[in-house]
Amino acid sequence: MINITFPDGNVRQYEQGINALEIAQSISEGLARNVLSATVNGEIWDATRPIETDAEIKLHTWNDEEGKFAFRHSSAHLMAEALEAVYPGIKFGTGPATDNGFYYDVDPGEHHISSDDFPKIEQKMLELAREKNAYIRKPISREDALNYFNEKGDEYKIELIEKRGADEALTLYEQGNFVDLCRGPHIPDTGKIKAVKLMNIAGAYWQGDENRQQMTRVYGVSFPKQKELNQYLEMLEEAKKRDHRKLGAELELFMFSERVGMGLPIWLPKGNALRDRLMNFLRIEQEKRGYKLVTTPHIGKKDLYVTSGHYEKYGEDSFQPIKTPKEGEEFLLKPMNCPHHCEIYANRPHSYRELPLRIAEFGTVYRYEQSGELHGLSRVRGFTQDDAHIFCTPDQLKAEFLNVLDLTTVVLNKMGFDEFNAQISLRDPNKPEKYIGTDENWDNAERAIIEATKEVGLETVTELGEAAFYGPKLDFMVKDALGRSWQLGTIQVDYNLPDRFQLEYVGSDNQTHRPVMIHRAPFGSMERFISILIEHTGGKFPLWLTPEQYAILPISDRFNHIAKEIEQKLALHDIRGIIDDRSEKIGRKIRDTEVKKIPFMLIIGEKEAEAGTISVRKQGHGDVGVMSIDEFVQYFTEQL
Amino acid sequence: MINITFPDGNVRQYEQGINALEIAQSISEGLARNVLSATVNGEIWDATRPIETDAEIKLHTWNDEEGKFAFRHSSAHLMAEALEAVYPGIKFGTGPATDNGFYYDVDPGEHHISSDDFPKIEQKMLELAREKNAYIRKPISREDALNYFNEKGDEYKIELIEKRGADEALTLYEQGNFVDLCRGPHIPDTGKIKAVKLMNIAGAYWQGDENRQQMTRVYGVSFPKQKELNQYLEMLEEAKKRDHRKLGAELELFMFSERVGMGLPIWLPKGNALRDRLMNFLRIEQEKRGYKLVTTPHIGKKDLYVTSGHYEKYGEDSFQPIKTPKEGEEFLLKPMNCPHHCEIYANRPHSYRELPLRIAEFGTVYRYEQSGELHGLSRVRGFTQDDAHIFCTPDQLKAEFLNVLDLTTVVLNKMGFDEFNAQISLRDPNKPEKYIGTDENWDNAERAIIEATKEVGLETVTELGEAAFYGPKLDFMVKDALGRSWQLGTIQVDYNLPDRFQLEYVGSDNQTHRPVMIHRAPFGSMERFISILIEHTGGKFPLWLTPEQYAILPISDRFNHIAKEIEQKLALHDIRGIIDDRSEKIGRKIRDTEVKKIPFMLIIGEKEAEAGTISVRKQGHGDVGVMSIDEFVQYFTEQL
Repeated sequence: MINITFPDGNVRQYEQGINALEIAQSISEGLARNVLSATVNGEIWDATRPIETDAEIKLHTWNDEEGKFAFRHSSAHLMAEALEAVYPGIKFGTGPATDNGFYYDVDPGEHHISSDDFPKIEQKMLELAREKNAYIRKPISREDALNYFNEKGDEYKIELIEKRGADEALTLYEQGNFVDLCRGPHIPDTGKIKAVKLMNIAGAYWQGDENRQQMTRVYGVSFPKQKELNQYLEMLEEAKKRDHRKLGAELELFMFSERVGMGLPIWLPKGNALRDRLMNFLRIEQEKRGYKLVTTPHIGKKDLYVTSGHYEKYGEDSFQPIKTPKEGEEFLLKPMNCPHHCEIYANRPHSYRELPLRIAEFGTVYRYEQSGELHGLSRVRGFTQDDAHIFCTPDQLKAEFLNVLDLTTVVLNKMGFDEFNAQISLRDPNKPEKYIGTDENWDNAERAIIEATKEVGLETVTELGEAAFYGPKLDFMVKDALGRSWQLGTIQVDYNLPDRFQLEYVGSDNQTHRPVMIHRAPFGSMERFISILIEHTGGKFPLWLTPEQYAILPISDRFNHIAKEIEQKLALHDIRGIIDDRSEKIGRKIRDTEVKKIPFMLIIGEKEAEAGTISVRKQGHGDVGVMSIDEFVQYFTEQL
Repeated sequence: MINITFPDGNVRQYEQGINALEIAQSISEGLARNVLSATVNGEIWDATRPIETDAEIKLHTWNDEEGKFAFRHSSAHLMAEALEAVYPGIKFGTGPATDNGFYYDVDPGEHHISSDDFPKIEQKMLELAREKNAYIRKPISREDALNYFNEKGDEYKIELIEKRGADEALTLYEQGNFVDLCRGPHIPDTGKIKAVKLMNIAGAYWQGDENRQQMTRVYGVSFPKQKELNQYLEMLEEAKKRDHRKLGAELELFMFSERVGMGLPIWLPKGNALRDRLMNFLRIEQEKRGYKLVTTPHIGKKDLYVTSGHYEKYGEDSFQPIKTPKEGEEFLLKPMNCPHHCEIYANRPHSYRELPLRIAEFGTVYRYEQSGELHGLSRVRGFTQDDAHIFCTPDQLKAEFLNVLDLTTVVLNKMGFDEFNAQISLRDPNKPEKYIGTDENWDNAERAIIEATKEVGLETVTELGEAAFYGPKLDFMVKDALGRSWQLGTIQVDYNLPDRFQLEYVGSDNQTHRPVMIHRAPFGSMERFISILIEHTGGKFPLWLTPEQYAILPISDRFNHIAKEIEQKLALHDIRGIIDDRSEKIGRKIRDTEVKKIPFMLIIGEKEAEAGTISVRKQGHGDVGVMSIDEFVQYFTEQL
């Protein structure tokens, strides 16, 4: 008998050689139906692999990333089996799971695969899935493996085997008629795969080497239920509609120019006003929490970055130094604001009584990215960080973390993000030599982060070994309206820069001490945040934030002067909007306003003009009645 | 008899050979006493030089720049005469008038001149001035002039003569015992110089060439009245106290850092808040006038500036291109915002109905200046322009000028500048080939500027030939509290960039047309404007603008919690300030608050705490009484 320990600490005894699936069955049939893989003593295994020793186990279903991973990887094998059935003699490269699905790189030989062939491949996959073929793990010797793929004539697999270490254990996985060289793990059988869709086909060089064979990469997604596939496809359709690059142009928020340079966003009036409102909101929330705004230049002498250590680390891959025409000076475009803020701290002596000092800046920074990597506002070469650096004593770390967590929560809620969590990145306890700063400081900082997140009830995942060499950190992740996760801002503890800039304060003991520094940016970057906000809201921004809150639509030119009067009255209540005074039919005006996603239409016709009222339509709701201006102001304000 | 035409168009007849001084005497003795020089047929002459032909004349006194110039230049000669008397054998280089006074570069030979010698030189100057020696103009042949200075042994003058063209007419000027090679003009006699003060002594290479003789440069100022000298010296004393570099550090408004780079201002929290308030004020005033704010990157591809023509013109003397680590791209730090704004205009087609389009940006730009030229915030390498570019039809130029003049007037008045005027720079009518754009467009633009300034009653000076090659412009000049003039913003018409960027709009005739562009910046640069504002106000900013509007001074720690309550109440009325809760004596707290130039001190002692009142002191006024918080809010608001 072996002892199986469950995540809740419970221990049960089982026969040696039992597997995770059988263990699940011993708990409930329902659970067993859903088990896809299992973590056994820290390794992810097939649910069907026999367990021979005492073990800690965790069962994985579709609800875990580990479960999804096995499911998608198994789907790649299923697709390979289907491809081999449809295209005999096809050769296989590698076929991993991805974040959303899977792909397989194949060499079709004499065949040609195009997206027109997807339906028949999908059909074959489903047919094979219905056979509920088990994924069978088969340890194999190097020699036998080489023989097998030699016989099959699959030179790519042979190359893969030859790259493996001589004494590395190899395994094959077999399901139905298909055998693959694979580390696993896989799901129990193909029957779990109820829905598949091939998404895309592309070329990809074998081993990423442009001098080698061009393989055909077939992308797919798969789900345990047809309904989930449908939802996923709807989500993709919706995401396409919400693409921030498309909406950004349609709503005239921002633009790019070839002549100005790729990846350098230009904020147009409406987008700029929205961005200003966001920054202003954050500015006020930060002021309440004791932050002080500064403005620093967008360049700094190379020396500054030599001092900070950034030049040595990133210099070669960054925008290159700016030389002066005389005097032989060298400047760098600022890739981050911290060195400038350190110089502000160092500008005069500090007493412990002044700490924490919270220096904030909406600082525009420039970082080189290859042009192929650029993507709308999400991946750019110039962006504005909602940055701040907190200089504090080690004792103040936890209170400062609480302060930042509070700020971030308030901000994300105000933006309409209800679901978010955080990843905490700590030291690798086995590699203390990787980190600078004393153990005491690290213990203190890690404890501060963990306790602070617990206190505010923030859901967290902790990763050991993911901390930077200079301090632990916390990353925020938000889920958008389409269920996609985005990484936002970071809170990073730093023991390094205060050292490099020799920052000091005089403590209550009259001795000089080194402050700790916290880098933090709740949005991360204004550009990236706005790209997420556009896709999250589909361009229907929260009312307080949206560029135009109303459009007044006079039914005839005769009412244009009334529209002007109403505009002025609403401005007194800080309600902003536009007048559509074109000589167009009202139907056309309404349609055009819909496209602009303006929350309220205020229509003035004969009746309204006489009665001094407006007919109000709300975006997504249609007609909400005739109101006086005062009534509308009240109605509007209630929805802010 | 000759005809003399006066500036008012009056014509009088005089004997041939009469001079301007005699003409003044024929009008009034008082005028004659004040005449220093005269413009005769467009040339500035000695008032004592005979007029042989019909002439248009204008008499100059101390109230004209031309009069001051002759006075200061004559003072340089007077100082030279004194120096020769005190230091026999001294040799002379050049001795011009400057904006505030004059200097002379001399080679003292065996003598040594130091500022300790100033009193005796000044005394000698006044002694010679009292002799009322006439400045006598003496045309001389090249040969005679060379002989004269050879005999005197003044090799510098000989070099100056040799540099003159062979057939150039030379003149000597003689007063008392001193003779100088000089073009003039000079004042009638030394008696007009009633007050002199030598200011400074410095080294200066002969002809600015560091391989040549180091001369001794003696600076001085002179006035027609002792009182004016006294006022000038007081002004200098006051200016020193108000030096924005000194006050900027004392009030913690901004700093510089060697590591970040010279000439790159870093805005500290208080200065940054002040700057934000200024920008915000302007933002609101601009919004009212139809401007749209945008944000563009701080770099642009080299191509952008090749297109705009800036690269060809300024490239070599600018910060050098930023290369990318891969892809071979080149970017430039943005030295101005116009090319970016042209790209915004060009982003989509425009109809005449959309014009004027007013694109505004608080755009931070970077321009290389030699480190020796840098000065506080006045001369920097990075600054933020309150920039805008107006794209309009030629017909809209005048209305747009009126709009900008109105904005500028409102803005300057709000800042407490009551005295300002403008320089209008027009074409040189004799060199039409220098300018791009049609005559019709130029006529139209020049007329628009002249008419607009007249309509708003702005005092102007018009300079022919000072226009840029691409359009006429208007520069604002303000006078500060010390009477000093500063150039602020510019309104510049531009026919060039719309051409280079091929900007277009579709007119009411359905044809494409080229818009005109106006560059305008009322402040010019935030940095420079704030430097002027600091010196104008001596750091006592207008109440709405000042970083801290009040300081609450509790007499004892026991009242600190009341101070907190008052702070919160005042915040509700948008009144901002600080609490001095240190355990210091009230006298010390008052003195420290005085230094910070905080407008109101709110003192809480036993009596005030009991009565729920505060004892209010106003900066520069002292005690203004005991008030309730509500009374103070009202009192405060009345002074905004």
